[in-house]
Amino acid sequence: MLEKVDLTKKISKEEYKEKMPQLEIKLGRLQRECKALGIPVLIVFEGFGAAGKGLQIGRLIQSMDPRGFEVHTVKNETEEERMHPFMWRFWTKTPSRGRIAVFDGSWYRRVLIDRFEKRTKNKELPLAFHSINSFEEQLSEDGSLIIKLFLDIDRKEQKKRFDKLAKNKETAWRVSQGDRERNAHYDEYAAMMEDMLFKTDTDYAPWTIIESMDRRFATVKIYTTVIKAMADQIEKVRRHNAVKAKEKAPGQMEETANRKSEIGEIAEEAGNEMRDLQVSILSKADLTLSYTREEYKEKLDKLQSKLEKLHGELYRRRIPVVLGFEGWDAGGKGGAIKRLTARMDARGYVVNPTASPNDIEKAHHYLWRFWRAMPKDGHVAIFDRTWYGRVMVERIEGFCTTEEWKRAYKEINDMEKDLYDAGAIVIKFWMHIDKDEQERRFRERQENPEKQWKITDEDWRNREKWDQYENAVNEMLMRTSTDYAPWVVVEGNSKYYARVKVLQTVVDAIEKRLKEK
Amino acid sequence: MLEKVDLTKKISKEEYKEKMPQLEIKLGRLQRECKALGIPVLIVFEGFGAAGKGLQIGRLIQSMDPRGFEVHTVKNETEEERMHPFMWRFWTKTPSRGRIAVFDGSWYRRVLIDRFEKRTKNKELPLAFHSINSFEEQLSEDGSLIIKLFLDIDRKEQKKRFDKLAKNKETAWRVSQGDRERNAHYDEYAAMMEDMLFKTDTDYAPWTIIESMDRRFATVKIYTTVIKAMADQIEKVRRHNAVKAKEKAPGQMEETANRKSEIGEIAEEAGNEMRDLQVSILSKADLTLSYTREEYKEKLDKLQSKLEKLHGELYRRRIPVVLGFEGWDAGGKGGAIKRLTARMDARGYVVNPTASPNDIEKAHHYLWRFWRAMPKDGHVAIFDRTWYGRVMVERIEGFCTTEEWKRAYKEINDMEKDLYDAGAIVIKFWMHIDKDEQERRFRERQENPEKQWKITDEDWRNREKWDQYENAVNEMLMRTSTDYAPWVVVEGNSKYYARVKVLQTVVDAIEKRLKEK
Repeated sequence: MLEKVDLTKKISKEEYKEKMPQLEIKLGRLQRECKALGIPVLIVFEGFGAAGKGLQIGRLIQSMDPRGFEVHTVKNETEEERMHPFMWRFWTKTPSRGRIAVFDGSWYRRVLIDRFEKRTKNKELPLAFHSINSFEEQLSEDGSLIIKLFLDIDRKEQKKRFDKLAKNKETAWRVSQGDRERNAHYDEYAAMMEDMLFKTDTDYAPWTIIESMDRRFATVKIYTTVIKAMADQIEKVRRHNAVKAKEKAPGQMEETANRKSEIGEIAEEAGNEMRDLQVSILSKADLTLSYTREEYKEKLDKLQSKLEKLHGELYRRRIPVVLGFEGWDAGGKGGAIKRLTARMDARGYVVNPTASPNDIEKAHHYLWRFWRAMPKDGHVAIFDRTWYGRVMVERIEGFCTTEEWKRAYKEINDMEKDLYDAGAIVIKFWMHIDKDEQERRFRERQENPEKQWKITDEDWRNREKWDQYENAVNEMLMRTSTDYAPWVVVEGNSKYYARVKVLQTVVDAIEKRLKEK
Repeated sequence: MLEKVDLTKKISKEEYKEKMPQLEIKLGRLQRECKALGIPVLIVFEGFGAAGKGLQIGRLIQSMDPRGFEVHTVKNETEEERMHPFMWRFWTKTPSRGRIAVFDGSWYRRVLIDRFEKRTKNKELPLAFHSINSFEEQLSEDGSLIIKLFLDIDRKEQKKRFDKLAKNKETAWRVSQGDRERNAHYDEYAAMMEDMLFKTDTDYAPWTIIESMDRRFATVKIYTTVIKAMADQIEKVRRHNAVKAKEKAPGQMEETANRKSEIGEIAEEAGNEMRDLQVSILSKADLTLSYTREEYKEKLDKLQSKLEKLHGELYRRRIPVVLGFEGWDAGGKGGAIKRLTARMDARGYVVNPTASPNDIEKAHHYLWRFWRAMPKDGHVAIFDRTWYGRVMVERIEGFCTTEEWKRAYKEINDMEKDLYDAGAIVIKFWMHIDKDEQERRFRERQENPEKQWKITDEDWRNREKWDQYENAVNEMLMRTSTDYAPWVVVEGNSKYYARVKVLQTVVDAIEKRLKEK
């Protein structure tokens, strides 16, 4: 999750001044609404030291009625707390209905700082993760809203901030020996963060990464995240209450439930805002990357002949490979797959094209048809479009419910984990081009009689939803790129570059695995 | 779960002949209904070898339309299957909407026979359990009904059946070397069964134990379990469809949703049947157990003085103790607690009486108030009534929803696991008396002016719901008695006996722990 974060994001002073007053008004409004509806809210601040947790909490509560919230600062356990189960101090601090609890540090300490400093032993880790997820699931099912914010800065920035604090007498006490240690072992600590994010990023309590290099950007993103989450929860509770009221007195007040509410509008606006603020993995791709025809020919030839040999080796060593291809329409999936398989023994791989599910497939769980197509040991299965349709087209076209696509991230991660545990190499490619390049390719297809079959009205319609898709794709890449089944964004404006990158990635992954085993 | 099973249950030939025709008609009817509503059903048969899985499956499918189901026999993996993730052969066999898949053996093989025969390695076990739970949760959320039956027989009966099969030339092949091995190491294998039952007994796919010593009893219980589960699922889907239809066309057809349906009646009847068939842990208690006054005095004195010393030792060794008391009204909780604490240092224990939650408690998760009262290291917390109210009074009086009490078993197990992981001794006592004894005690209280405050109209009202409570208590004991936090049923008709048993149990548990550490 963290490696995909773009830490260069900024907001200008002017933009900040323009946005904040509106956000502050909304937050105050939503707090009152949560109180009225009896929704307990937990806001968790985690992240790197000196990322600005204290400062941001101070900024966030400025817009709240102080009678309605409490801030809990989580440090080392007190004597009393140490003599209880580690979740005890958090269970006892859960907010009552209608109140907000802000946590400066939290139960995640157990699997972060305490893990880093070896106060949490290795065998205690799975228990701690189980307790944490159980805690959050229980509260969430009981009606609590849990907002988890992860404040991210890089090692250099962290060191700079520590140095600055240390120089000043008034603030030097805030930089501990532990802070310095974690900065010195930034990568090791970041790996623990990453592990934590993956194990606890659930549909009932998802993480939001806050890029915190720029204070203003972080403030705006925190406000927007909290506003979106609260407004969604309020809407959910209202719908639920409306259904219950209808059951008690059928026929009454039908229209109020359907009328678009003011809170619904706030939710929608915040959703649009979030799109701009969200981690944009795609926007980081450098689409100018390219190869000349000569470079391409040479690299392609080398890689294909390498893969030919490796394919045989995979077969002998009985290692299965699963390669998923997703990407924009006309992003170059077909071309890349063709070059990938060009010299592979046809008995050892299958390309599975994924269309809309047929009737038999529709009569099963959405993952069923993909499970059926998974390769046996020593074989390669290539998917031209994949199970990720669930969190892209099905999400955007409303072919499944919000609950369904939200829980799909975990379901998909679980499936890929099963494949990995059974020894498979799993890689997913996102074939990325920009909007202009897509238009160029669409027109080329229309004009070329040989290629006309490749372009339909639907492609043009999908293109109109580019922004919605981009948002969904970013979220997908974020939540389902794992160490056991990573996403690879392929810069695809240059077809030559894209094809070579795909081949190179596959070759590297196989070589790495062969060395391991 | 298994240690609490009563394997002596039987049904006479006459009763069997009377019951079966009705059950068969209902099952056929429900199959058609599931088909019409597109509900996929998975029926899993697991349990001890020679418990009669094959025979019972044959009996079950007699009432079904053969065009609507498939039976999968799960043996060692084929060559093809071994070359895939272990869940692959099950994912690909999931039934399509409206169809029934019966599994003779199942994905549980991985954590049972394969574990016993060391084909599944220890480090693979947590992964396997994760995959299994994820599989069942995903299918269940997708609308599948998963019915899991565990056929239980004891070691002696198993051996007898193996011997009988072996003697006959025609059936000798059915007894494998593996069967003999597992019979020889029955206890070791049963412990794996137990571990499996606890890790996979979920609200979305719960286990039902089928006492299979008596073939007729098993058949009736299997039919009734399947009928109840199907009828409940059909009702659930219908309610869901009704809500959706209402959203589309508000106001229409209100009354059909509220009308009691025929399927609803089948569900209710099967529910009543299940009560008689359910594992009755309470009925196994021998309520004639008693002590004379002299025996009591002597034992009490010894145990209390032992506990006095142990209490100090607990404090020094910083071991926390959590003791929960539940039981019938007038079951003797108060008296037992009084004798338990008589000579304990008052600074080292707290008795928490649990009444209906007050307003502040109601504004939190139901476990919050209990978390707050959990003892710190070296201290003892005694609860007079406990968090189990959720699955007894709240369940029966409708103070919480069905979903809420169903998931409470896991929530409670998780909480007790947290306490245990933090070093606590956790024991729960069920103070058991029979109905006559309760009446005697109620009347005594009413007649004795000193004790009149102890009896209210509510006690008499609760008494009327004895059967409902008994059912809920049996389910509770079954699903929440764990090795880390066991339930102890205290035979309480003799107060002397009960008090001594409580003290003895606590003393034994502390002594055991002190030896371990």
